[in-house]
Amino acid sequence: MSIKEDALALHKEYKGKLEIKSKVKIEDMHDLSLAYTPGVAYACKEIEADINNAYVYTSKANMVAVITDGSAVLGLGNIGPHAAIPVMEGKSILLKELAGVDSIPLCLATQDVEEIIKTCKILEPTLGAINLEDISAPRCVTIERRLIEEMNIPVFHDDQHGTSIIVAAAFINIARFTKRKLSDMTVVLSGTGAAGSMVAKMLKNIGIGKIYAYNVNGVVDKSKYDSYNFLIKELIDTNVFDTPINHDNTLASIMKGADAFVGVSAANLVSKEMVKSMNDNPIIFAMANPTPEISYTDAKDAGAYIVGSGRSDYPNQINNVLAFPGIFKGALSVRASKINEEMKLAAAYAIANIISDDELSTDYIVPTAFDKRVVKAVSEAVAKAAIETKVNKI
Amino acid sequence: MSIKEDALALHKEYKGKLEIKSKVKIEDMHDLSLAYTPGVAYACKEIEADINNAYVYTSKANMVAVITDGSAVLGLGNIGPHAAIPVMEGKSILLKELAGVDSIPLCLATQDVEEIIKTCKILEPTLGAINLEDISAPRCVTIERRLIEEMNIPVFHDDQHGTSIIVAAAFINIARFTKRKLSDMTVVLSGTGAAGSMVAKMLKNIGIGKIYAYNVNGVVDKSKYDSYNFLIKELIDTNVFDTPINHDNTLASIMKGADAFVGVSAANLVSKEMVKSMNDNPIIFAMANPTPEISYTDAKDAGAYIVGSGRSDYPNQINNVLAFPGIFKGALSVRASKINEEMKLAAAYAIANIISDDELSTDYIVPTAFDKRVVKAVSEAVAKAAIETKVNKI
Repeated sequence: MSIKEDALALHKEYKGKLEIKSKVKIEDMHDLSLAYTPGVAYACKEIEADINNAYVYTSKANMVAVITDGSAVLGLGNIGPHAAIPVMEGKSILLKELAGVDSIPLCLATQDVEEIIKTCKILEPTLGAINLEDISAPRCVTIERRLIEEMNIPVFHDDQHGTSIIVAAAFINIARFTKRKLSDMTVVLSGTGAAGSMVAKMLKNIGIGKIYAYNVNGVVDKSKYDSYNFLIKELIDTNVFDTPINHDNTLASIMKGADAFVGVSAANLVSKEMVKSMNDNPIIFAMANPTPEISYTDAKDAGAYIVGSGRSDYPNQINNVLAFPGIFKGALSVRASKINEEMKLAAAYAIANIISDDELSTDYIVPTAFDKRVVKAVSEAVAKAAIETKVNKI
Repeated sequence: MSIKEDALALHKEYKGKLEIKSKVKIEDMHDLSLAYTPGVAYACKEIEADINNAYVYTSKANMVAVITDGSAVLGLGNIGPHAAIPVMEGKSILLKELAGVDSIPLCLATQDVEEIIKTCKILEPTLGAINLEDISAPRCVTIERRLIEEMNIPVFHDDQHGTSIIVAAAFINIARFTKRKLSDMTVVLSGTGAAGSMVAKMLKNIGIGKIYAYNVNGVVDKSKYDSYNFLIKELIDTNVFDTPINHDNTLASIMKGADAFVGVSAANLVSKEMVKSMNDNPIIFAMANPTPEISYTDAKDAGAYIVGSGRSDYPNQINNVLAFPGIFKGALSVRASKINEEMKLAAAYAIANIISDDELSTDYIVPTAFDKRVVKAVSEAVAKAAIETKVNKI
């Protein structure tokens, strides 16, 4: 059978991918008197006396809501909240299976920014954290920032940060492996949406020298400042995006002489000639999904030294699964009030350091998605960074 | 150990009573490719093409949210959404353990009626049904009615209907057991909040002759119409509440000569003398929690024929657990768009009919909470009533 047939059969057979289970047995009146009335009232009273006891007596401490409005689902676009459910369920079961974190998918019947913010805030009491998912840019950035500011639990938009953390891990390892300084490298970024913008920010945070950016409107250039959304403006203002000196508004013109290309944009934007025009031993991370900006084979043919993509059938897969389970586990383990830049950087270094110097190779720059060591390393590093930056509550 | 110590230990040991489980295995890239990208996209597309496919490919078909604002939790009052979590988790695991229905607790950080309504509507895509819980009256009635009107999934406020359905089942069996006609009976109801109002309505629906009501302001009397909330006004308008001819605004004055007393009010309101003043073989259902309007022993001493309460340590426990699991299971099984009066009546008769004529006794008028036959009988009766009233979608 094909992936399509197998996937539909799987979803249909189980009627969705997750279920709720009781952790306590309910078989007789005695069980009921402890887990429900009258015994439950004592747990309620403890929480009424101190709201923090919700973390002691309820599932809140380990409960993540995966929340979307269905406006930007996978590569499928604005398919709405119902059609988004299978993806959110997938995310939920990954959190559980990989990191032991409980998670419920909630797909909202609104695409209004204020209504989404309001709803998340109203849902706070039962939740330990929120994973925003598949919300279109730049709305997702506004929503995430407002919620981080206005809520007491961590809010993390995986589409923004997941890819950026793994790409940062990849570049940390590229520097180790090639013995180059990150500060000497020029990276060309194609795509300045939610993921692209945060990839740029993380790359700057780990010390990349220059970042030139390209999007559907051409090369990002300070001279066009007024035409940009707040996200691009901010990245120009903070010197994350540099303006290339010579360009004719084409991607080809800024790839000449660059050390690396990072694509979170669209299929087939990069030709072999463009790769050949780059600096020696060029690095290509082409993550457009399912068809990358340039195929692994073409990139290698054109002389690329290290090639990565979003695909599992080629080396160096940039898979968000490496980051979010451990990040939530780590943040929840110390009751972090937010997931800050230091925690994301700690996650990137933890992922990178899974691979020893001896193991590093052109085809093994990032760990594989099911490497059992990853969640443990990431969660511990994230918890440590939370404590160091004093956002932990326990 | 005491109930208090045992209950707190249980809640603490498990850190809450429920967890999320994956129904599919996620151990390697192949599993991931079916349950998550790229395979999951095919399930998304099927739902995008027809929203009804959410019932085929996701957990929606079997997913109930237990929603509260924490404004009227058990006998604890307005303890807020955090302190309400243990009760909602209890409800969720009962749905799962007794009826196989998946359920998530959601405690809302708002007590504004419009915000609660809005939030429930926004949460609709992922949910198969909503169980409203522990919301104060008469707000809960407004919220439930609006949601039934404005949502496409069943919304059921157990505090309103649960008790009423079991009390109705009890009276159906009292009529069978005592060979009396329901239409010949006069019932005195103490308490006209969410539960009391619906008890009155259900008792009228099964054919009780006269219902006199009493609340904190005294005897409900048509002459005081303008002072009542919309709920009491409505019950007067529809002749559910009758005005007693002779009364001095005391509960005692309307209990004289009555056939039955039903209390959903407050502790110790009923004296032995009041029971003695009733008609022969009086029936007492004293359900104030945890201390009833009159104790089982006192009621029996005073000559009560059949006595029931909310307590599990005496006969004839009126326990909501008899109704809601089967009602949700039945409604979900035929994708009912609502839970209407016919379905609630069907549940009452199904619960009553669990006990055969031969088995009925003064101490066995309603089935016990863990009678395995109940959920099956209720869910089948509810599904049948949904089909007969054409609110089923499958």
